[in-house]
Amino acid sequence: MRLFLGLDPGGSKVDAVLMDESGVVRGWGVGGPANYNSAEVVAQSYEDALSGALGPSPPSELWVGAVFMSQRVPEWFQARGIVAHFHHANEVEAGFSAALEDWGVLVLAGTGSFVHARTRDGQDLHLGGFGPVLGDEGSAYDVGLRGLRAALRSAWPGARPTALARAIPAALGRESAWELVWPFQMHQLGRRDVASLAPTVDEQARAGDAVALAVLQEAAVGLAEIIGVALDAVGLRGAGCPLIGTGGLAQGSPLYWSMLAAEALRIDATLRPLVPPVRPAVGAAFCAMRAAGALVTPELRDRVVETQRAFSRAVVAAPTA
Amino acid sequence: MRLFLGLDPGGSKVDAVLMDESGVVRGWGVGGPANYNSAEVVAQSYEDALSGALGPSPPSELWVGAVFMSQRVPEWFQARGIVAHFHHANEVEAGFSAALEDWGVLVLAGTGSFVHARTRDGQDLHLGGFGPVLGDEGSAYDVGLRGLRAALRSAWPGARPTALARAIPAALGRESAWELVWPFQMHQLGRRDVASLAPTVDEQARAGDAVALAVLQEAAVGLAEIIGVALDAVGLRGAGCPLIGTGGLAQGSPLYWSMLAAEALRIDATLRPLVPPVRPAVGAAFCAMRAAGALVTPELRDRVVETQRAFSRAVVAAPTA
Repeated sequence: MRLFLGLDPGGSKVDAVLMDESGVVRGWGVGGPANYNSAEVVAQSYEDALSGALGPSPPSELWVGAVFMSQRVPEWFQARGIVAHFHHANEVEAGFSAALEDWGVLVLAGTGSFVHARTRDGQDLHLGGFGPVLGDEGSAYDVGLRGLRAALRSAWPGARPTALARAIPAALGRESAWELVWPFQMHQLGRRDVASLAPTVDEQARAGDAVALAVLQEAAVGLAEIIGVALDAVGLRGAGCPLIGTGGLAQGSPLYWSMLAAEALRIDATLRPLVPPVRPAVGAAFCAMRAAGALVTPELRDRVVETQRAFSRAVVAAPTA
Repeated sequence: MRLFLGLDPGGSKVDAVLMDESGVVRGWGVGGPANYNSAEVVAQSYEDALSGALGPSPPSELWVGAVFMSQRVPEWFQARGIVAHFHHANEVEAGFSAALEDWGVLVLAGTGSFVHARTRDGQDLHLGGFGPVLGDEGSAYDVGLRGLRAALRSAWPGARPTALARAIPAALGRESAWELVWPFQMHQLGRRDVASLAPTVDEQARAGDAVALAVLQEAAVGLAEIIGVALDAVGLRGAGCPLIGTGGLAQGSPLYWSMLAAEALRIDATLRPLVPPVRPAVGAAFCAMRAAGALVTPELRDRVVETQRAFSRAVVAAPTA
């Protein structure tokens, strides 16, 4: 049976999934960040993800669907004598594949963010991609940054009390939010560190913290606004299209996704929000399967969902519909 | 007649003014940035400001009021055999002195921003100072960043046309806003560069560009919000206190100041907005004069305003009341 590897390098981690043609997940590897980092860091991230997915006895031949086709990947396989057939599956194709959809609005909310609209007849529009601070509206970075700002402001007289004041610095091993100001300004606190605060904001919001809830809400509003621009630009408003959420934040925080979907539905009530039950790396593997002539059916995806449970870091938290 | 030097090192430039005891400005020097920069850059900035203010034949003795007491400054005078008497005048004292006020709300909107409230009986509250991105609401950095974001979004379908799309990259010697994304993410486009875009936003807003006007307005709302927090915290709301605007943006853009004052008056209609007709460096010199037992009167300040006209970079643009 042929083996397929899905590879998704992102701003916070490299995800790699190994599955067979029937959808049984055989391995899952996670490495460090791949964007905005030194060559050494990136090399180690790929190494960890690939060796994690393939294990100590890698197969002699496989098909690779990679979201970003780094030169490191073919070299890695060559060095180990593995015959690898490559297929380039970008973030958009991987996202639609993971959702088993071929049109609609794809929203990535991971470390960064973007919005991609695709009509039934294949017209495409991509918005976003300006990166931290300039863009990345509604991303984990955006949520983390807003959380950090809220933690800093919580010391102001008259401020609403918020658990973020302690939870945000604690998440980065500090006593107070003030201790994060200088490292942030000196770029020692990087994109990934700020994005890593999103789960803390999510946790405090679920515990009922009003400021944390407002942080998530503001981030969702910023991203929903771009969804509205995209819908109008390609004429999809009112067309009842899927609204697909992928990425660590959209797939990892059901609360955030419910807020984002609610904001988007306020713009277009015919949207059908959905979060794929598999990560983009699985979508990339599906792209490679299709390119190799294999069928990717809902049943096959169900088998992925079932068998990926053996790999705790592979599972997504958001509801599937 | 005794000579006084006022020194104000800021995020974008070091300002130095030399005046005599009667308020006649004898020299004005401007150097590069002093914050968040390498030691070499900072040393050159001080050198340019001090030698610019003192000229080729410096006096043998003078009194120095310095907003930030860098070790470089005494060393600079020592190396030239100049007897210098130092007085530390922080940004707050320099601001109140420049305004000839001793209570009220002082708002700094330069490269960075802060709000300082002082009651008649000397109770103090300082808000802000978190630096770029985390804070600096309503600063030149904030205006520049919002302008850059607006320029990037102007390419989106359905976006309002804005002159910022060309003016912002042109101000930094680029063809398109997209060319600024990578340098920004790589920190090659620094705090001072982003803040340097504020005059471009101001210029386009005065020419009637709706997006540029909205950028100024949003920045002003962010800073006015902090003014409101400060007023409530020290019990000055409704007390009819001065609202003093200092810094390059508050003193250089009458349009921005009018927006900020209008927002603040919406919070407290009894505020008395005013912009000193002299820069903080002059306020620092006033502090040194007072410490040396000299009187700083409105007439003396009028003489400064009159005589500083010989030094084009010394003059402030905002209305004086």
